[in-house]
Amino acid sequence: MRWVGANGGGVSPPHPLLPSLNPFSHGTMAALLRCPVLARHPWLIRALATAPPYPQPGDPSLAAHCPFIDVGGGPRFVQRAAPEVQEDVAPPEQASLDWLLDLEETPEEIPERRLDDNLPEDAFPYEAVFGGRLAGLKRTHTYRVFTAVGRRADAPPMGILGSPPRPIQLWCSNDYLGMSRHPKVLQAARAALAAHGLGSGGTRNIGGTSPLHGALERALAQLHRQPRAVLFSSCFAANDTAMATLARLLPGSVAPLGALCDVAHAHGALTFVDEVHAIGLYGARGAGVAERDDVMHKVDIVSGTLGKAVGAVGGYIASSSALADSVRSFGAGFIFTTALPPAVVAGALASLRVLGGPEGGLLRRTHQRHAKHLRLLLRDRGLPVLPSPSHIVPVRVGDAEANTRLSRLLLEEHGLYVQAINFPTVPRGMELLRLAPTPHHGPDAMENLADRLAQCWGALGLPLEAPPGPSCSSCHRPLHLSLMSDWEQQLFQLGGAPVQA
Amino acid sequence: MRWVGANGGGVSPPHPLLPSLNPFSHGTMAALLRCPVLARHPWLIRALATAPPYPQPGDPSLAAHCPFIDVGGGPRFVQRAAPEVQEDVAPPEQASLDWLLDLEETPEEIPERRLDDNLPEDAFPYEAVFGGRLAGLKRTHTYRVFTAVGRRADAPPMGILGSPPRPIQLWCSNDYLGMSRHPKVLQAARAALAAHGLGSGGTRNIGGTSPLHGALERALAQLHRQPRAVLFSSCFAANDTAMATLARLLPGSVAPLGALCDVAHAHGALTFVDEVHAIGLYGARGAGVAERDDVMHKVDIVSGTLGKAVGAVGGYIASSSALADSVRSFGAGFIFTTALPPAVVAGALASLRVLGGPEGGLLRRTHQRHAKHLRLLLRDRGLPVLPSPSHIVPVRVGDAEANTRLSRLLLEEHGLYVQAINFPTVPRGMELLRLAPTPHHGPDAMENLADRLAQCWGALGLPLEAPPGPSCSSCHRPLHLSLMSDWEQQLFQLGGAPVQA
Repeated sequence: MRWVGANGGGVSPPHPLLPSLNPFSHGTMAALLRCPVLARHPWLIRALATAPPYPQPGDPSLAAHCPFIDVGGGPRFVQRAAPEVQEDVAPPEQASLDWLLDLEETPEEIPERRLDDNLPEDAFPYEAVFGGRLAGLKRTHTYRVFTAVGRRADAPPMGILGSPPRPIQLWCSNDYLGMSRHPKVLQAARAALAAHGLGSGGTRNIGGTSPLHGALERALAQLHRQPRAVLFSSCFAANDTAMATLARLLPGSVAPLGALCDVAHAHGALTFVDEVHAIGLYGARGAGVAERDDVMHKVDIVSGTLGKAVGAVGGYIASSSALADSVRSFGAGFIFTTALPPAVVAGALASLRVLGGPEGGLLRRTHQRHAKHLRLLLRDRGLPVLPSPSHIVPVRVGDAEANTRLSRLLLEEHGLYVQAINFPTVPRGMELLRLAPTPHHGPDAMENLADRLAQCWGALGLPLEAPPGPSCSSCHRPLHLSLMSDWEQQLFQLGGAPVQA
Repeated sequence: MRWVGANGGGVSPPHPLLPSLNPFSHGTMAALLRCPVLARHPWLIRALATAPPYPQPGDPSLAAHCPFIDVGGGPRFVQRAAPEVQEDVAPPEQASLDWLLDLEETPEEIPERRLDDNLPEDAFPYEAVFGGRLAGLKRTHTYRVFTAVGRRADAPPMGILGSPPRPIQLWCSNDYLGMSRHPKVLQAARAALAAHGLGSGGTRNIGGTSPLHGALERALAQLHRQPRAVLFSSCFAANDTAMATLARLLPGSVAPLGALCDVAHAHGALTFVDEVHAIGLYGARGAGVAERDDVMHKVDIVSGTLGKAVGAVGGYIASSSALADSVRSFGAGFIFTTALPPAVVAGALASLRVLGGPEGGLLRRTHQRHAKHLRLLLRDRGLPVLPSPSHIVPVRVGDAEANTRLSRLLLEEHGLYVQAINFPTVPRGMELLRLAPTPHHGPDAMENLADRLAQCWGALGLPLEAPPGPSCSSCHRPLHLSLMSDWEQQLFQLGGAPVQA
């Protein structure tokens, strides 16, 4: 691999992040992006690709981490590393970025076809009705345009966007702890892929059950201290099927409904807890909020997902044997669905084992610390962070159009991907940016995000709030009592300044 | 790897298929099963593991395929291969059978918990209601017990069952063409796993879309010659969400309903075709029955699965842009579900490319030939094969209990896995064995299945039908005119024997 610095002449920049990378081939760009150190710092790649002056020799602390960066201030900024380092360089994996670039085969042109084409003139105007509903979404800025991001398993939370690929940083993934790329998860998935192939080949009842499926169901039941668990292809399907099946199995007349209400009012009835956003994140073993609050024995039915913190895909319910078995035996959404692929099941199982051990505890603590820190950084800049007791940092924008523009600005100008959340995921008027810091978003990345977000916020003329607390009398940055030592806090209080916001 | 023959002494056999393998360690058993040639012939492993006399030297034609089989008739039946072969032996993959054996960690004992435990004494009897419904299933022999099979990606259609693992042959997989283990599919899945990790990390709108998702949707739209396709985590979810969303978007009053009916009666209205069992199997590019019958332009909405012949998991719809976009924009079952993992998407994409080319055509022809051949073999033995124009060979049993016993007998006695299909998948009284021969089920395997099935059928006292056609006057086996040459058929007709059943 040859590392090439750019002095690409007067070609007009295709993108502000990488002004003069245009003359580069895809291969060179991909090579640049392969360095996991550089990839985390898009601004460094920009510096590398821009005409001189380069950053000062020895200046970026990153140089100390990367044997390819020329701290002597050579003209290319990168250098050939020492032979002993070269020997240690891993060959580029088959799964490189080139894989994505090879994807775009010449597509066959499919002409637009209207639903009316097959119907007589006086038929119901399907096309107009659907078109009208979509136009309504576009008018209210709630039409969803998916952002196709190639998430980088080798350098979370980085990803690539577009062709030629440019580096971006993800701030809205539900892969909360980065488990989707944990070495043990990938190893288990690779092993199951080689042993059993990609798909399961059938519904659970007809050839689709592998020993791994049972092992994962047992692991999930144990996680929630429930006798039995049932696995689905998503937690949406798990909730939908469980609720519909149970309602169908219970007699649907007036008397039991009253009795149900009585029980519900007096005693809380059967409890169904959806832990999708908490699995892996809360509790000593990552079983969720019920474990953290020590109320697992009070939960009758729990539903969870393997698609967020566990880093795979799929959903499940866990409950008593009779209830779980009823959903398994009567639920159409379970019975008629192809089972999860063994590779997915093996990866989820490996992930749960990691999350249940000391490494899981460390990941959870780092995760909570990062969420708290990011919340402080954003408040400091006057951004309206919504109160949230969880690991999600929501910033309220309150308008679908501004929300979409803000999200696009962050992505296009700064390579920061934060998805705008509009109706129907949130009520109208509650439109927000949903930030999900992970243990892989370091302090530098958080400072950078807060600065860029405040900058875009200002560019769109959105109102800032006053910082909630006291600020330093010399640099004017906000003070955080919770980050001070006891001794500093006492000194601060003695000085007579306000101690609480 | 050392191949060991067995002379295990007088230990009583744990299983009729492998009478004296009991003293073997898991490792030795796994080593035996690793040979892809031996694995396809469970009876050969049995011979290998039984006390002498071994099969005659040079007798099994298999010996010619395997450098480890001692055609000289040595006492162990296996031999150390020549050095040049040894050098060519692939090291055992990390993904060996040992992987499954390592799974069984000591499970934490979770005590049974009744739903009534948290409720007052006069509460609704949830536990009794669910228990009663399950008891009903068991009474009618429609309670499903899942058979946990480790499908062998290296030797389809073989799998392993139980611990210690014993070889079985799968006859009921929806992986109709064995695409779940096609080298190109596995390569694509491995590459995406390494590049992007296991899970997609989000819903399609929030970080879960990779460039692969778009590429697969384009490939699916092109396959069906529809302007646009929408991907789901299963075809059950695709159908469910599409139908519910469309019904919700269209106005629900009397007038359009009448207009809908008029259109339906006079012109067939909008057509929704579920091609789940046909994708990959019919048509020049594997687009399904609509392609085979050249009516793709008449189909308004098509739904399909990636979990059967494509060999992955997931579902989709394809239709006009407005309709597909409406389902994408308004369907809760799409919006709130974690996107398919990039590795699954990459594998499905690779599979579709193979299926659309000449190799796909060859697989389809072999598949149809095998299904036809198996149907003949079963009819010859008087088994009640239901008429079916497809690649599925259904054998009607007509009784849930007998069906379940038959299926278990085939599995336990002969290592043949054919799932019994009972209510609610088929109506009561239509209980059947559903055979799904693939291109990987060879003629020998089909003969063996037909013999064993007829044997078990007789053991259970089930009635046989008279073979439908003429039989040979010397060996008494049925004659199949369709398998004779024109010349043979003419001779046969000249002889005055009946020419049609």
